[in-house]
Amino acid sequence: MKGRLKTYWTERKDLVDRALDALLPGESEFPQVLHRAMRYTLFAGGKRLRPILAITGYEIAGGKDVSEVLPFAAALELIHTFSLIHDDLPAMDDDDMRRGKPSSHKVFGEGLAILAGDALFSHAFSLIAEADAPADVKIAVIREISRATGPEGLTGGQVLDLISEGAEPTEGLVMDIHRRKTAALISCSLAVGGIVGGAGEDLLSALREIGTELGLIFQVVDDILDEIGEKDKMGKGVRKDLERGKCTYVRLKGVEAALSDARAMRDRVKELVREKIGEEKGWVLMDLADYIVERSE
Amino acid sequence: MKGRLKTYWTERKDLVDRALDALLPGESEFPQVLHRAMRYTLFAGGKRLRPILAITGYEIAGGKDVSEVLPFAAALELIHTFSLIHDDLPAMDDDDMRRGKPSSHKVFGEGLAILAGDALFSHAFSLIAEADAPADVKIAVIREISRATGPEGLTGGQVLDLISEGAEPTEGLVMDIHRRKTAALISCSLAVGGIVGGAGEDLLSALREIGTELGLIFQVVDDILDEIGEKDKMGKGVRKDLERGKCTYVRLKGVEAALSDARAMRDRVKELVREKIGEEKGWVLMDLADYIVERSE
Repeated sequence: MKGRLKTYWTERKDLVDRALDALLPGESEFPQVLHRAMRYTLFAGGKRLRPILAITGYEIAGGKDVSEVLPFAAALELIHTFSLIHDDLPAMDDDDMRRGKPSSHKVFGEGLAILAGDALFSHAFSLIAEADAPADVKIAVIREISRATGPEGLTGGQVLDLISEGAEPTEGLVMDIHRRKTAALISCSLAVGGIVGGAGEDLLSALREIGTELGLIFQVVDDILDEIGEKDKMGKGVRKDLERGKCTYVRLKGVEAALSDARAMRDRVKELVREKIGEEKGWVLMDLADYIVERSE
Repeated sequence: MKGRLKTYWTERKDLVDRALDALLPGESEFPQVLHRAMRYTLFAGGKRLRPILAITGYEIAGGKDVSEVLPFAAALELIHTFSLIHDDLPAMDDDDMRRGKPSSHKVFGEGLAILAGDALFSHAFSLIAEADAPADVKIAVIREISRATGPEGLTGGQVLDLISEGAEPTEGLVMDIHRRKTAALISCSLAVGGIVGGAGEDLLSALREIGTELGLIFQVVDDILDEIGEKDKMGKGVRKDLERGKCTYVRLKGVEAALSDARAMRDRVKELVREKIGEEKGWVLMDLADYIVERSE
């Protein structure tokens, strides 16, 4: 990351990290091991993509006081972390490393990892319920989030990912998995920020659409990095998807074609931002699209 | 169950079962295996204690149209079922039977069982967000529920239950586990009904307190039944708690003393209902206290 995006990201990541620390019970709270496990994966690193996108959506919608959106942004990161912890379990992707450290279940055992995920998911809704915002805004956010985490989103995507292991990937199946497993929560994050910032229906639709496209690029690049990346840089195991016969975009098309498709998707999403939001308000999303693709180049 | 309680229960159980069926996506929805798994444990039987208590709380608060509270009641049963599915996993209580049938992970595998639980939890919040009720009522319900499912409630209780296996039970520890793991959601159910029915703060406090006491009796009796019950009647494995060295009330005090304590708790909760709600409005809770204890006699 470089230039104005780097400055933007660093400032907001700092806000997000401080909000997460403030909004999560401390490790000395009883039962301590649960609170340690909740914080362990949450603070093991991470780009904070989803909470920062919530801030971006809030700012695009005209929100003026970032502290208004922080509890919602934090909730989205808790939900993302819950999904990572469950995703890494032996019964799912069986990943021993996450964010450069041993996975939750390697440190705390499977039972505690499952429960730490559950508790993060539960706490996300608590943060939203307790946030200082009108009740109808909070309900609109919960509607958006529960759709993104349900069978149409995260959990449905995880299931498809799991039951499609070893199957011959088709473009329809791969995109459906990516859309639910990755794009749904990323799209939801931008939209949640928009809702809290007071976006109207047109802007919300645009944010959802752009978020979905960004999420799809992100996942295609993630598939490429799993194939060509180095373990040290990624903070998690690489070539695991291939080993497990996952239905990835790279298995479908190969690295070269996947990269070229990612570039085309980037161009489309930048055009979409220009058209629906404008470059002045939407430059973060355009720079982010560039950055995501550059990671794999 | 007998007499007026049986009539009351049967009528409301029927409403709950129909609401659950109507409010859950059908098994033909994609991905089908996820929707099958979500419905499998949900419709494998069950007393519907929590959703019926939500209806009771609603009626005590003066609610006149039971259909108002049904989405909330259904959400509580989804959350209870999510906790059962995760609780039965090999990494937790490792129970092969639930509600008289093989556990979710025995039928669908561990990965899908974990995800079916997650999806039920997510869908519970979706039902609340979509319910036909004022936004501030829905937020108050979500606040109540997220407290009951977080570290202070369900997930915290599960963690304590897990890490205390083999430990010498003390009364403080056993009651803390019961309070979080069982009583929190039962108390929450009565309170949620009260909120939807328009209860004031005093009545809500009373409902929470009575719900907690009922939950504690319920768990003490459950411990007794695990010790003396027959597998056929229980629909789940018996004497599992003892085998795993769980910190149960029976291990702490023995069956005789546990039963005598349960009777004393029943008398106290009936007195509490008489004092705070009155026999005319609160008879269901009094009859229920009797019924719970009679199960173990």
